Amino acid sequence: MTEMQLILVLWLVGVLTEAITGALAAGRNRMDLFGVVMVACFTAIGGGTVRDVLLGGYPLIWVAHPEYLLAIAITALLTVACAPVMRYLSRLFLTLDALGLAVFSIIGVQKALSMGCSPMTAIAAGLITGIFGGILRDLFCQRVPLVFQKELYAIVSLATASLYMGLTLVEVSEWVKLLICLPLGFGFRLLAIRFSWSVPTFDYQEQTAH
Amino acid sequence: MTEMQLILVLWLVGVLTEAITGALAAGRNRMDLFGVVMVACFTAIGGGTVRDVLLGGYPLIWVAHPEYLLAIAITALLTVACAPVMRYLSRLFLTLDALGLAVFSIIGVQKALSMGCSPMTAIAAGLITGIFGGILRDLFCQRVPLVFQKELYAIVSLATASLYMGLTLVEVSEWVKLLICLPLGFGFRLLAIRFSWSVPTFDYQEQTAH
Amino acid sequence: MTEMQLILVLWLVGVLTEAITGALAAGRNRMDLFGVVMVACFTAIGGGTVRDVLLGGYPLIWVAHPEYLLAIAITALLTVACAPVMRYLSRLFLTLDALGLAVFSIIGVQKALSMGCSPMTAIAAGLITGIFGGILRDLFCQRVPLVFQKELYAIVSLATASLYMGLTLVEVSEWVKLLICLPLGFGFRLLAIRFSWSVPTFDYQEQTAH
Repeated sequence: MTEMQLILVLWLVGVLTEAITGALAAGRNRMDLFGVVMVACFTAIGGGTVRDVLLGGYPLIWVAHPEYLLAIAITALLTVACAPVMRYLSRLFLTLDALGLAVFSIIGVQKALSMGCSPMTAIAAGLITGIFGGILRDLFCQRVPLVFQKELYAIVSLATASLYMGLTLVEVSEWVKLLICLPLGFGFRLLAIRFSWSVPTFDYQEQTAH
Repeated sequence: MTEMQLILVLWLVGVLTEAITGALAAGRNRMDLFGVVMVACFTAIGGGTVRDVLLGGYPLIWVAHPEYLLAIAITALLTVACAPVMRYLSRLFLTLDALGLAVFSIIGVQKALSMGCSPMTAIAAGLITGIFGGILRDLFCQRVPLVFQKELYAIVSLATASLYMGLTLVEVSEWVKLLICLPLGFGFRLLAIRFSWSVPTFDYQEQTAH
Repeated sequence: MTEMQLILVLWLVGVLTEAITGALAAGRNRMDLFGVVMVACFTAIGGGTVRDVLLGGYPLIWVAHPEYLLAIAITALLTVACAPVMRYLSRLFLTLDALGLAVFSIIGVQKALSMGCSPMTAIAAGLITGIFGGILRDLFCQRVPLVFQKELYAIVSLATASLYMGLTLVEVSEWVKLLICLPLGFGFRLLAIRFSWSVPTFDYQEQTAH
């Protein structure tokens, strides 16, 4: 298996995991099956889509490969069918989501670099890929994005993307970069969940200028 | 009248109908006249704009033809002026909206095919064109998109786009495609309204992983 | 100082002012520091980003100059650190925001014209640049955009952009255009705040077709 095949497999795991979390979020909003499929799509490929629209990286991945949309739709409908057992799998989803977060962050950096972006833009692209699926999910489910309020999630994405970018600058081989960044990003997120690490909150309740 | 003239006329009917539904939704949120015009614009041309941004189909239609923005703004302000009689016209709007939905879905497929997209992407483009105006309207009016929750709306768009795509693949002439897809899509939506058809809902209220 | 240097300095003042208003809005939603930085970014550069995505004007400014993202992030974090004194500065922020609004509107027109857009599209681009940062801020903070509901804000942007476009059509020199449009746009907004000018509201509470 080449490193690109590894990253593709992990990307697919991440995409389908995000499809499941999107479908469950839609269910919490009592959406119909069509809404479930749509929110699953936004969650699963929203991050990469926002990144590519912002970078002008056309064609988008799901435009070139619409079969991913089909895979996401099927995953979303299977999630509905298997809803009764989903509650017992929440730990598994958190784990797969943590893996997906690390993979998405790395892929975002790779994509931006392949388009000739600067290191700082590439890190931003990694972050956008990592977190925007969840932001879109929360936007369509009418809640302030979780990633802005709770848990160490975005910071994990930022750290993973930055580390990958740093290793790229010192010209480490692709395998070594993946073997360093994937476990560290994945482990960082798992530790953040385990110990409920979070970022300080800014609570500003004065009435001021809008 | 050529088939392209017919589709342009029907598109304009659809755009202006959507402008009216957008203006009324803004009024339900007690927006000011500027907000009314903006929400009318999002509703009327949001679907095509999202489609073209996702496909990279520049320039956008309203960038090339900003006079459409003016027509939408005038329609929105006329809607405000005629608000007292609007309640008596709701059946007319539902009917015009049903026609617009079929037309938008067909135009989305046509646009994607003209850009060399695959059949499945073209169907997705038809769906996006059909429903994203309403999604943006609901997003800016702070409600979970209607299209994700109620009524057979998106499915009508999906069916119309799929049928048009299928007829394109078997190389039917443009007139025949329109004469088949427009009445079927339009009629399907009217039947869905008449008999309150809807898609099953997914209600998932367990607390699980985000 | 050339006119382009003046406009760049004023643009930076506007961007950093918007970053502060974004950070404070995030604080009102009790977001964490990451959310604060994100909402500051959306508010500060969201308008220009939406404009360039709609016009296809790649690369986006912050993709070409990611150091602006860093400046916005630092400004947002300084806003958190200085939160206790922020309430005493609300009048200052309103003033800087009014200046930023005029500058953003002018820059939007300039950018669209430099891409060969028509006068009407250029005015739309000025308006989008002026108001979309605040719209995105409100969207992520879960409120109906202020600009759709209260105050003479968007109209100021529209007037400034239209005036600048008009002066461009009669081929006035850049300095003269700036010396006319900046004070007029700025003053118009200050007067609107001072006298609580607002646009009439459309209140439509009938149940009608969606």
